[in-house]
Amino acid sequence: MTPATLQLEKDFLTYVNKMTAYNEALGLIFWDLRTGAPKKAIEQRSQVIGTLSAELFELSTSDQMASFIAGLSAHKDKLSEVTVKTLEECQKEYDRNKKIPAEEYREYKILQSKAESVWEEAKEAGDFSLLAPYLEKLVETNRRFTHYWGYEGNPYNTLLDLFEPGMTVDILDSVFTKVQEAIVPLVKKIQTKQQPDTSFLHAHFPEEAQKKFSLEMLKRLGFDFEAGRLDEAVHPFATGLNPGDVRVTTRYNEHDFKEAIFGTIHECGHALYEQNVSEKLTGTPLSTGTSMGIHESQSLFFENFVGRNPKFWEHNYDLLKEFSSGQFDSVPIEDFVRSINESKPSLIRVDADELTYCLHIIIRYEIEKGLINGDIKVMDLPKIWNEKYEEYLGIRPENDAEGVLQDVHWSGGAFGYFPSYALGYIYAAQLKKAMLKDLPDYEELLADGNFKAVKDWMVKHVHQYGKLKKPLDIITDSTGEGLNPQYLIDYLTEKYSELYSL
Amino acid sequence: MTPATLQLEKDFLTYVNKMTAYNEALGLIFWDLRTGAPKKAIEQRSQVIGTLSAELFELSTSDQMASFIAGLSAHKDKLSEVTVKTLEECQKEYDRNKKIPAEEYREYKILQSKAESVWEEAKEAGDFSLLAPYLEKLVETNRRFTHYWGYEGNPYNTLLDLFEPGMTVDILDSVFTKVQEAIVPLVKKIQTKQQPDTSFLHAHFPEEAQKKFSLEMLKRLGFDFEAGRLDEAVHPFATGLNPGDVRVTTRYNEHDFKEAIFGTIHECGHALYEQNVSEKLTGTPLSTGTSMGIHESQSLFFENFVGRNPKFWEHNYDLLKEFSSGQFDSVPIEDFVRSINESKPSLIRVDADELTYCLHIIIRYEIEKGLINGDIKVMDLPKIWNEKYEEYLGIRPENDAEGVLQDVHWSGGAFGYFPSYALGYIYAAQLKKAMLKDLPDYEELLADGNFKAVKDWMVKHVHQYGKLKKPLDIITDSTGEGLNPQYLIDYLTEKYSELYSL
Repeated sequence: MTPATLQLEKDFLTYVNKMTAYNEALGLIFWDLRTGAPKKAIEQRSQVIGTLSAELFELSTSDQMASFIAGLSAHKDKLSEVTVKTLEECQKEYDRNKKIPAEEYREYKILQSKAESVWEEAKEAGDFSLLAPYLEKLVETNRRFTHYWGYEGNPYNTLLDLFEPGMTVDILDSVFTKVQEAIVPLVKKIQTKQQPDTSFLHAHFPEEAQKKFSLEMLKRLGFDFEAGRLDEAVHPFATGLNPGDVRVTTRYNEHDFKEAIFGTIHECGHALYEQNVSEKLTGTPLSTGTSMGIHESQSLFFENFVGRNPKFWEHNYDLLKEFSSGQFDSVPIEDFVRSINESKPSLIRVDADELTYCLHIIIRYEIEKGLINGDIKVMDLPKIWNEKYEEYLGIRPENDAEGVLQDVHWSGGAFGYFPSYALGYIYAAQLKKAMLKDLPDYEELLADGNFKAVKDWMVKHVHQYGKLKKPLDIITDSTGEGLNPQYLIDYLTEKYSELYSL
Repeated sequence: MTPATLQLEKDFLTYVNKMTAYNEALGLIFWDLRTGAPKKAIEQRSQVIGTLSAELFELSTSDQMASFIAGLSAHKDKLSEVTVKTLEECQKEYDRNKKIPAEEYREYKILQSKAESVWEEAKEAGDFSLLAPYLEKLVETNRRFTHYWGYEGNPYNTLLDLFEPGMTVDILDSVFTKVQEAIVPLVKKIQTKQQPDTSFLHAHFPEEAQKKFSLEMLKRLGFDFEAGRLDEAVHPFATGLNPGDVRVTTRYNEHDFKEAIFGTIHECGHALYEQNVSEKLTGTPLSTGTSMGIHESQSLFFENFVGRNPKFWEHNYDLLKEFSSGQFDSVPIEDFVRSINESKPSLIRVDADELTYCLHIIIRYEIEKGLINGDIKVMDLPKIWNEKYEEYLGIRPENDAEGVLQDVHWSGGAFGYFPSYALGYIYAAQLKKAMLKDLPDYEELLADGNFKAVKDWMVKHVHQYGKLKKPLDIITDSTGEGLNPQYLIDYLTEKYSELYSL
């Protein structure tokens, strides 16, 4: 490598560090807005967000960036792996941002922000027709963008790639059909069965006690409190500002402790991922989860494969009893475990249980794929939505607020995002299967509260790589095969057949 | 005004908005670091601070800024008042930053940060000699800077001007001599008198209850919780990110509730100032307190002239009893008020009472003036410090940790800052006197809990202007005269003569 290239690599990494710094500042601002910034802060804070975002956009599309890409791409074989992957990330973003005419991009940003506030009104009023014209424009713009960006096979592939690099319609069609064909009959059978008693789950559980229990749960699962914190948020989330500062949030419902505890365990999964990305990636865009789907595999793994596993509660049920106000004292652990694994079709995605969740996602996938390909018209959405819910889940929304208007994603222009949730489940089941080979005593580890071995396995096979590896490489390298929904299907079939004596 | 100048003014204000946005982002980052960022966040967060600060420095010293200054200064008579004052602030900063050679500035920044960490060690070890070489360099650099910047009369004037625009050695010498000559004899007399019983102040007062009381107190004083919040910090402070987001912090000592409550009232004074700066200044550097001294006048006014006034407690003592655990139930309000107004010389500035506080400041003023003028050598500091404490306060530190090493200011290179604290007292007494003309029933207002009239007076005469007015203009316009220490002297003499039957 010539001294000039060496210097260029150095300058590039310094430049990228600067972009990472802007991202981190923005991350902190968003965390603050969602956890406790005073109401009147928002107007001026939006200016700050605008300024920093504009600077970041400028950095990602500058002539300087273009010359880094041009100058370094020719020498990839001589650059460090971190530089090469960082360069590829930067190039992807550069292309994505540069290929859209600036004026169209600006208009789209305005449209997005308007549509999100119209969505709030429309949901409030339960009136899809308010949102429809905005949604039409959003779909149309996204279709146009896929042409600017280019696509292989199907325009929707390009949108999928934004959230799950490498994912395609062909793969998803095949995978989701298998999942749906396996789950729908299970769901239907369960509806003929007796549901468990869950009344004790709704006894009063004071917020302060839930908070203490959540903190203890995070500690037990290996969350590093020197590198993170727990706060409250209306819409819980986790955010990795840097590997030394990963923040989770939860919310406390005093009459349904499940929200806080399973929410906390879910976000803990995301957080463990962010806390354990290798330090050598710090300051680069690689220092975060590799995709939405892999991220979700971590949160869902911890929420369901750990948190809803009966063995997990063998270790933690006493702690729950200690922190709650006597509501579980006369409930045998079997009944408790049964109650937190109740499966019951719901209209609302975020309230869905482990078994039915994927069906909510598949409905959304089929619809958004149709929208982007022009097979579905925006005006027909409520009808199609309701029919699909009836078909897959056996229930029908009574209004659009509990139907097509329930999620913010499409109003924000996020088409291609939903599949990640279901992919997360599928990945999680695959990882669990692979983990069992290394940790055959998995169930005993949970029963003994030895979560460290489980976490360490994830760090070794998933977390440490950040974005150094693509999602499918993570899965292939750690499980020995590509995306395969069979493990999830087997897991759900076995678990729910036993729970409901099917 | 020509269209070109009009456009230049518009561009300038946009440019300044951008600088304000960077400042706000940095403000949030510092707030976060001081209130609860996890330990391991710091390393990477420092990079973020470095990036944003460098960008801000670049913006303040750019060629673009130079051409705004040059292009607009010729048309001041045609520009809005906000633009003119903003321009003057920018010019001041530009000159200050440009006159120091870049390399020297960089070295100074490194020296500052090293000296602060050495100070921590030195204080821990009680060993001034560790810090001395760094302090020597800091003094020497500041002396050099005053020559780059230029000064009138006395190099120290230039440093004073950084914190209290317009303040000079001539003014301070005269004012501080009067204060000292009046206070020292009072302090000496009090030492021959019986001290009040204060034991009940130290009974156990649970943190959670103190927090609730502090929140209620902020509400009663007019703090707007839609435009701010209360958090905990080891070293309490208030920070105005923008007028809609002003954050106060306090700390809870379960065996000395005074720390939290008077700390909260003190920070509330700062916060009310920042919350009530006129909205027309938002987004400019004028949207904050006009000087350290005027800021401190607000915090000290609320802490002492309101919070330590017996009438204030006529309204609030019941609330205190309600939140505490019975410790005040048998204490008559007169005894309580007496106890929170105890005056007793202390070695530590931050523990000082209302009467002796100014003497701590005058000692520091005399020393730092001597350092900058070359009349005092760094190596002689411990000796001089201890002698002055003996002379003014009648007590002598036993080691440097409780003497010359107690404050961080000098290690951070902040020479010229200390006088602001005493100026704040003097201003506060002047403002109180002027307020009495408009609100002759001041004492009844406090007794009735009608703090709104008091706050509104401050908003009208001080808060709303932000940096539109210079500190001395604020005082002259609202009191009808310039800086005058007599009101503080009268207030303290009267109050403490009565309290201690002198």
